[in-house]
Amino acid sequence: MSVRAGVVVTGTEVLTGRVVDRNGPWLSDQLFALGVDHAHTVVVGDRDDDMLAALGFFARQGLELIITSGGLGPTEDDRTAEIVGRFQGREMVLDEATEARIWEILSGLRTRWPHLDEDAIRRANRKQAVVPRGAAILPPVGTAPGLVVAPAPSSAGSRFPVVVVLPGPPRELQAMWPAAVETAEFRAVLAGASSYRSKMLRLFGIPESEIAATMRVAREGGVDLDALEITTCLRRGEIEIVSRWEPGADDVYRAFEDVVRSRHADVLFSDDGRSVDTQVADMLRSSGISVACAESCTGGLLAARLTELDGASEYFPGGLVTYANEAKSELAGVPASLIAEHGAVSEEVAKALADGARAALHAEVGVGITGIAGPGGGTEGKPVGTVWLSVSRGDVDPVARLTRRVHLPGGRADVRDRSTTVALHLLRRLLMGESDAPGERAAEPSAAAAGEPSGTHGPAATEGGPVGDE
Amino acid sequence: MSVRAGVVVTGTEVLTGRVVDRNGPWLSDQLFALGVDHAHTVVVGDRDDDMLAALGFFARQGLELIITSGGLGPTEDDRTAEIVGRFQGREMVLDEATEARIWEILSGLRTRWPHLDEDAIRRANRKQAVVPRGAAILPPVGTAPGLVVAPAPSSAGSRFPVVVVLPGPPRELQAMWPAAVETAEFRAVLAGASSYRSKMLRLFGIPESEIAATMRVAREGGVDLDALEITTCLRRGEIEIVSRWEPGADDVYRAFEDVVRSRHADVLFSDDGRSVDTQVADMLRSSGISVACAESCTGGLLAARLTELDGASEYFPGGLVTYANEAKSELAGVPASLIAEHGAVSEEVAKALADGARAALHAEVGVGITGIAGPGGGTEGKPVGTVWLSVSRGDVDPVARLTRRVHLPGGRADVRDRSTTVALHLLRRLLMGESDAPGERAAEPSAAAAGEPSGTHGPAATEGGPVGDE
Repeated sequence: MSVRAGVVVTGTEVLTGRVVDRNGPWLSDQLFALGVDHAHTVVVGDRDDDMLAALGFFARQGLELIITSGGLGPTEDDRTAEIVGRFQGREMVLDEATEARIWEILSGLRTRWPHLDEDAIRRANRKQAVVPRGAAILPPVGTAPGLVVAPAPSSAGSRFPVVVVLPGPPRELQAMWPAAVETAEFRAVLAGASSYRSKMLRLFGIPESEIAATMRVAREGGVDLDALEITTCLRRGEIEIVSRWEPGADDVYRAFEDVVRSRHADVLFSDDGRSVDTQVADMLRSSGISVACAESCTGGLLAARLTELDGASEYFPGGLVTYANEAKSELAGVPASLIAEHGAVSEEVAKALADGARAALHAEVGVGITGIAGPGGGTEGKPVGTVWLSVSRGDVDPVARLTRRVHLPGGRADVRDRSTTVALHLLRRLLMGESDAPGERAAEPSAAAAGEPSGTHGPAATEGGPVGDE
Repeated sequence: MSVRAGVVVTGTEVLTGRVVDRNGPWLSDQLFALGVDHAHTVVVGDRDDDMLAALGFFARQGLELIITSGGLGPTEDDRTAEIVGRFQGREMVLDEATEARIWEILSGLRTRWPHLDEDAIRRANRKQAVVPRGAAILPPVGTAPGLVVAPAPSSAGSRFPVVVVLPGPPRELQAMWPAAVETAEFRAVLAGASSYRSKMLRLFGIPESEIAATMRVAREGGVDLDALEITTCLRRGEIEIVSRWEPGADDVYRAFEDVVRSRHADVLFSDDGRSVDTQVADMLRSSGISVACAESCTGGLLAARLTELDGASEYFPGGLVTYANEAKSELAGVPASLIAEHGAVSEEVAKALADGARAALHAEVGVGITGIAGPGGGTEGKPVGTVWLSVSRGDVDPVARLTRRVHLPGGRADVRDRSTTVALHLLRRLLMGESDAPGERAAEPSAAAAGEPSGTHGPAATEGGPVGDE
């Protein structure tokens, strides 16, 4: 029997997108690890009826577990605890131990922020200590306690759904989760859970329709794909194939993966969950090679992405953001004459930026990016989305290079973000020993060198384009 | 009468968070502009039953309009059109005009990517042209047509809910939206919609509990807050207060805003929807002042944020990412002795980075950021989250400066992101003419200068902390 759960994310600010929900996805991973099937996430605004409707929807679907995030704060629009209490048929009571505990937490705060309205704090304290009678209370991480609330014994007689009430800030929600799982109510739910296996394959440089074809080939070759749950998606220009199956279907999955491997050997870059970011970081760390970048249109995004991972200082001394042409010349040593002759968005300038980054930061490897992110600045010959990227490695003789032009779809943010993905894949290939033949011009990149179909449109040109739509 | 809508976002990759949904929030804004109330967003995985359950939930809620995004692609798990057809009681038929249209679009593709499997493309073509009989067909932006599907005349007799079926890629969905709104089916829904007004106030430098107190003060002062729909949230360290009301309640809103203004004059920085990013950009552009940055812990994020906006080249020549100490010295001219004496994370180094950025990029204003983003590197005196920020302006005599130390909560990504928010607010205040008294040390920032309560904990230290929990 499989146990199913639903997540309710509260907050008009999430519904309208002013805040991106990080809790639904995080909870999805946790549920998966516990063998619980995540059926739905519902985002609701701050209205009692909408929240109640979502809880009712999940209950009617027969879900055994409901997790809510948000709505435990001190303001009047934070009403989750009360609504869940009503839903489960439990009256609200002040829990004095919890009130005292919160007051203790707030004392430190009152010392640090002496000008705050004490009355406001005291009310917030009390509000957050009013809970459904008989609920399991999870100790606060901030000031809000969490709750695990089973239906009142007097209601329909079912022990399900159990509702887990967690605070909205991801840091608090995540810290509180283990305590929620340990409650008797949660354990009762888990008694029926089964286990799954899953694996993710990542590919870069083909359209999604090719995966559809590969799935048909597998099916025609006798692989029972119905035993697998396979989803494919395009993310930041890469295709992810995620498969999930019950332990008995291990052989089916292996057969499917074999078909993917044989058809897409040149573009399958990850089969162990590692992103290209992690792969590049691991290669740099293990080889002792350092990388620097000089960015124009990406404006620092590649440097920011390279330093997202802890420990980046081992291989990343720094970077240059050379937005103005003068900065390209003065900081990265790109001759002004080169810019005048070929334009700032050109193969020559991309190469010079890569070399200049190496020189300025004393790094073995340099990355240069120059392009037109839009919305303005495009021309017929160089439309918005045209980006030149070059990576070069100076600790070998002759200097090893990979240089590509891509035409990226989408708006300014898409073009900038996608450029960093292309740069990381070029960096990965360079570190694996690939390089352009010396003297070769890069205007027509070869298919083999970057794992992309031939033609001037690079791999990332396809998302949202005519193939791989969706 | 108010018209209510629900959004169904499909895709296991969204449910599990591998892809962040941008369509729900975008659609929410569009619905709001049309006077339609956005009640729920449901995220469902790629399973027919879950999708049908979500549609049924919305129908039972009495929603007049349902919008789906995703599931129109060429792979086998893309099943939205068929499920919506079944839900509305309409059989699926091949639309030959649409098939021909898609084939035309694909021809360009086949020229550009000659090695693709032609059979795969032809099947994808046909699949995407099979639609519910009688549905309004929206011309493809990629290859997938959109649909507007009313219930079949033979079903229960209601004209609602109308289901609008849109592709998943935000670029396609957004481009297709106007055509959807123009259909007769959609217009029939809009006939019942009313209009709302809304306004957003942004504050920086107080905990959220203070807003709760302000709302009580307003209520006690006779402001009928029940006539307003008010939501508050913390986003990137700032508080947003969004109010929505029907036209008759204009006076109530004005009275509420007056209370907020009188209590929070020093921290209310935006009342016209402009973000601090836009305010800074506007001030730089109108004054002809340029800004450069030298970043350590943020690793390029501030430069990336400054160049997010189109036209940044008018005031942003570039930046330095000085991760290694040698880079701080060589590129930003920070004396190695200064680093040795005070440490890389110090007031002195932050100031020197700001000045060095100005000098290296020939900018009037410089920003320096140096801190400990974690998870490693913290000490007792400088724990993870300690960040020194300095802004300086060299076109006035003496040089104007604002320098602050903050202790930011959360993980590595939070500390890095929040640092850029603090930097932008310092930049804003500097451009508005504020500066520290010459010779003043910044270790104990004054409350007035940065709009924050006194003490060494800066404004952004509060999110997820003991106050403003949620």
